[in-house]
Amino acid sequence: MQNFEQLATEFKKYFEVKHFPATPASLYESCDYFLSLGGKRVRPVMCLMGNELFDTINPDAWHVATAIELFHNFTLIHDDIMDAAPLRRGMQTVHEKYGTSTALLAGDVMLVQAYEYLNKINALSKQRILTLFNKTAKEVCEGQQLDMDFEKKPGVQLEEYMRMIELKTSVLLAASLQMGAILGGASEGNRQHIYEFGKNLGIAFQVQDDYLDAFGDPAKFGKDAGGDIRQNKKTFLLIHALQTASAEQKNLLQQLMRDTPADKVQRVLEIFKACDVDDWARELKQQYFDNAMHHLEEMAVVSVRKKPLRELAEFLIEREH
Amino acid sequence: MQNFEQLATEFKKYFEVKHFPATPASLYESCDYFLSLGGKRVRPVMCLMGNELFDTINPDAWHVATAIELFHNFTLIHDDIMDAAPLRRGMQTVHEKYGTSTALLAGDVMLVQAYEYLNKINALSKQRILTLFNKTAKEVCEGQQLDMDFEKKPGVQLEEYMRMIELKTSVLLAASLQMGAILGGASEGNRQHIYEFGKNLGIAFQVQDDYLDAFGDPAKFGKDAGGDIRQNKKTFLLIHALQTASAEQKNLLQQLMRDTPADKVQRVLEIFKACDVDDWARELKQQYFDNAMHHLEEMAVVSVRKKPLRELAEFLIEREH
Repeated sequence: MQNFEQLATEFKKYFEVKHFPATPASLYESCDYFLSLGGKRVRPVMCLMGNELFDTINPDAWHVATAIELFHNFTLIHDDIMDAAPLRRGMQTVHEKYGTSTALLAGDVMLVQAYEYLNKINALSKQRILTLFNKTAKEVCEGQQLDMDFEKKPGVQLEEYMRMIELKTSVLLAASLQMGAILGGASEGNRQHIYEFGKNLGIAFQVQDDYLDAFGDPAKFGKDAGGDIRQNKKTFLLIHALQTASAEQKNLLQQLMRDTPADKVQRVLEIFKACDVDDWARELKQQYFDNAMHHLEEMAVVSVRKKPLRELAEFLIEREH
Repeated sequence: MQNFEQLATEFKKYFEVKHFPATPASLYESCDYFLSLGGKRVRPVMCLMGNELFDTINPDAWHVATAIELFHNFTLIHDDIMDAAPLRRGMQTVHEKYGTSTALLAGDVMLVQAYEYLNKINALSKQRILTLFNKTAKEVCEGQQLDMDFEKKPGVQLEEYMRMIELKTSVLLAASLQMGAILGGASEGNRQHIYEFGKNLGIAFQVQDDYLDAFGDPAKFGKDAGGDIRQNKKTFLLIHALQTASAEQKNLLQQLMRDTPADKVQRVLEIFKACDVDDWARELKQQYFDNAMHHLEEMAVVSVRKKPLRELAEFLIEREH
């Protein structure tokens, strides 16, 4: 039984191989470049943790973890094109450095390579893993589409926003855990619980992310606080505020979003607080966190094996940065 | 034993189902739209023909044929983005109609859906089919990247151009046939021969396409003859001409490409003829066609079963339109 850090260290070492051939360099250099930017490798490690919850690590879990990380990087490369993002992890995005067409192909070929890793696993689990992987991949694309739709759509409701976050972010965490569990021989019931654990944790994490961006201590949070507000980004907070504010507050909020005065962040935060958005968000986060922990507890596995996942959940959700 | 037309009719009927869910419509409508534009469905039918060469059609061949057609459409959607093409089959391209971001996601989700069809096939063939599919998918991406590289590169040599065409066009035809053969239980030797048949046929077809664009009878060819010349498109003809022309002819050719006079097409054709590019191209086509037929003949299968593939090859290559 290893904790997140131990598995992350191991996975990073394992993942540090050439995943692509040398030529044509005009294509594969961009893939190597993007993977070299690193990342926390949360999803593949969750796959390994989901696996180790039930058994010693199945050699196939390394292939699946690699496929998941390649898939995640494929989505980042394509998302960066769609968002016209100049930077990723403080470095140039692929389309900025190599052009949009190459970035598009780099993503495509990275997705194919993910499937090649899935093709290495034992035939007994392959059908089930591929089914879950494909379902999740489609959901992530749907989530990205909804996210783009919502940018242009006025009056997005909390429920549909929640569903978008679920698709765009949570299902990949949930599926990563569940793929590990499948390879660990988990029962149908346990497979469901670990999926729900991941899904609820993902939503709690996103609520917290939105909360910290608005109300977090900038010194601890690291990022430029209030960035979401400055960009009029749709977040749990803004959507709830627009749904619960008085007509007067709502008008003011919309005016601030339109006019962008110098003290915009401060004044939006005042409205958020007046609408109790901060308390509401903390409660919402806690509710999803509790749901996640409930599903973890419900799993028919001796408690000591759950320790690394419990610690990870607590670390992710109680963080202030 | 069915010929190309019979199988094409059958496949088109089979393929005419909803391949995507209804929602989110903002994503899946674009996928449905593109598939509704139709096409000759050459690649999936080649898979079925490769299968029927060895046995009655294996039910899995329909899944693989569907995956191949979805894959091909995925490449078209993304290629159209890269080429900024306004039209495909006389209709708006996906990015023109739905925006680049949705077109990008539509391609992605179509590739995932291709894998979902591959996931339906029997476990016994799955590993082998997926390996070939992944290898081919990567090669097609490499071919597209090389094609883009060559647009900007002066002095592209015939060998590297040939390799690009092989990757971008031929390997998918070859792999489609070979996947059918695998599902038909073909021996290793026969699998090699059918692959080489498809690869050589693909190159012969491309040489012919380039030839007809320059020297074909516009009335029969249908397309606007000389289009490649007008666009300075790198083709077998242009590359060979630049390699074999005298210094004077080469200068003139480059001047015509730069200055685009009104009689450009006619004058470039004169140089092509003076360099015997037309004879050379006909010979090159014949050479690849002969290679293809040689591999077809070498297959250890009774001759009568080869008839539909022989007819298809002759139809594709002796066409004047």
